[in-house]
Amino acid sequence: MEKKRVFSGMRPTGNLHIGHMSVLENWIQMQETYDCIYGVVDWHALTTSYEDPADIRKNTKEMLLDWLSVGLDPEKSTIMVQSKVKQHAELHLLLSMMMPLSWLERVPTYKDQIQQLAKEGKNITTYGFLGYPLLMAADILVYKAEVVPVGEDQLVHLELTREVARRFNHLYDTEVFPEPEALLAKVPMVPGIDKRKMSKSYNNYIPIYSNRKDVEEKVRHMITDPARIRKDDPGNPDICVV
Amino acid sequence: MEKKRVFSGMRPTGNLHIGHMSVLENWIQMQETYDCIYGVVDWHALTTSYEDPADIRKNTKEMLLDWLSVGLDPEKSTIMVQSKVKQHAELHLLLSMMMPLSWLERVPTYKDQIQQLAKEGKNITTYGFLGYPLLMAADILVYKAEVVPVGEDQLVHLELTREVARRFNHLYDTEVFPEPEALLAKVPMVPGIDKRKMSKSYNNYIPIYSNRKDVEEKVRHMITDPARIRKDDPGNPDICVV
Repeated sequence: MEKKRVFSGMRPTGNLHIGHMSVLENWIQMQETYDCIYGVVDWHALTTSYEDPADIRKNTKEMLLDWLSVGLDPEKSTIMVQSKVKQHAELHLLLSMMMPLSWLERVPTYKDQIQQLAKEGKNITTYGFLGYPLLMAADILVYKAEVVPVGEDQLVHLELTREVARRFNHLYDTEVFPEPEALLAKVPMVPGIDKRKMSKSYNNYIPIYSNRKDVEEKVRHMITDPARIRKDDPGNPDICVV
Repeated sequence: MEKKRVFSGMRPTGNLHIGHMSVLENWIQMQETYDCIYGVVDWHALTTSYEDPADIRKNTKEMLLDWLSVGLDPEKSTIMVQSKVKQHAELHLLLSMMMPLSWLERVPTYKDQIQQLAKEGKNITTYGFLGYPLLMAADILVYKAEVVPVGEDQLVHLELTREVARRFNHLYDTEVFPEPEALLAKVPMVPGIDKRKMSKSYNNYIPIYSNRKDVEEKVRHMITDPARIRKDDPGNPDICVV
């Protein structure tokens, strides 16, 4: 039986931390059973960083190195950089012609993100930011991917991709695009060393390239069971991520 | 001295009529003094005809043949088809990231055209239609064109292109894009055989590929001087286009 095609992408945000590991572990497992294409989606980084794009190229290289170091295997999967494959831009443009404006304006995260970034002094009310869920759809559909691993927060975007595929197939009386199915990640999210979501901006992360000593030092200070206040309180290992 | 770079494009609308001749005569003249790039902008045709794109390929071929037949010379100018040069789509995407949404929403023709086409039962409130002035900007800027021949009705779009170039150069502290200058066409507009604007939809046009007999037949019935009611009234040749 032929393997199903998978596409998944990640924005180049610089060196990965172990918070990304849940996604990457999922990707590594999928290599065995799917025909996987993993992309550094560097054009997406421009939607929020168009004013300061200098780091994108460096971050792309670092991310590719991290991917290889944790076990993504170019012999098993296709590893690509979005901006090197112009067909992503071409399909994005072609799909834009039949993409109802209202579908993009109604994406729930659209206005939220504009407001959040406005607090940081960033203005992202651009044509490109409005269209970025369509660019995600093009990223997936250009490979006719059948399966897309997603987190809960990405389900809305994948549903939009499915609607774009359906609309295209219907308008042109074709079946050129499969409607990609969501595969919800099974590996749970890794919290930061302070139990908040692990993130570079909270400075609560452990980089993937850390040496043993640094990791031990950081893990030693992590919260295990929040109910365990004193050192000799018994902890509950079932709710301890460490 | 190096010749200045010119870009101009035309949508593939099928066989040309002599109403297009004023534009084409201008193009033919410009071949002598400029480094001209003339493009069939077939992606633009999709903004209004995405629901029925079947004719675009045929129309593109016919338009290219008409261009050659009236004297556009591939030895002197570069003649191209937009959809064959993916860099138009790539630059469009890159520019979209820094393109304020409000600039596009405020283009004066934007809402007018949506309403006009709604009367014909066409829904063009799409992401692509909103972005088409940006695609025009990309068409011009991708060649770093310095001069663009335009009709009065296109001046607004060219001004937007100039603003896009200025914003890009300013944001990234560069001079990569020249601000293209408008060259207003000198040849006056040719009216249709009923004196309204010559247009396929009014059925008042004379196709470029007509034979002598058909042209004579059509011209014979054209209005010369509207003040000349009877055959023996004297006409005024200064206001007669025939």
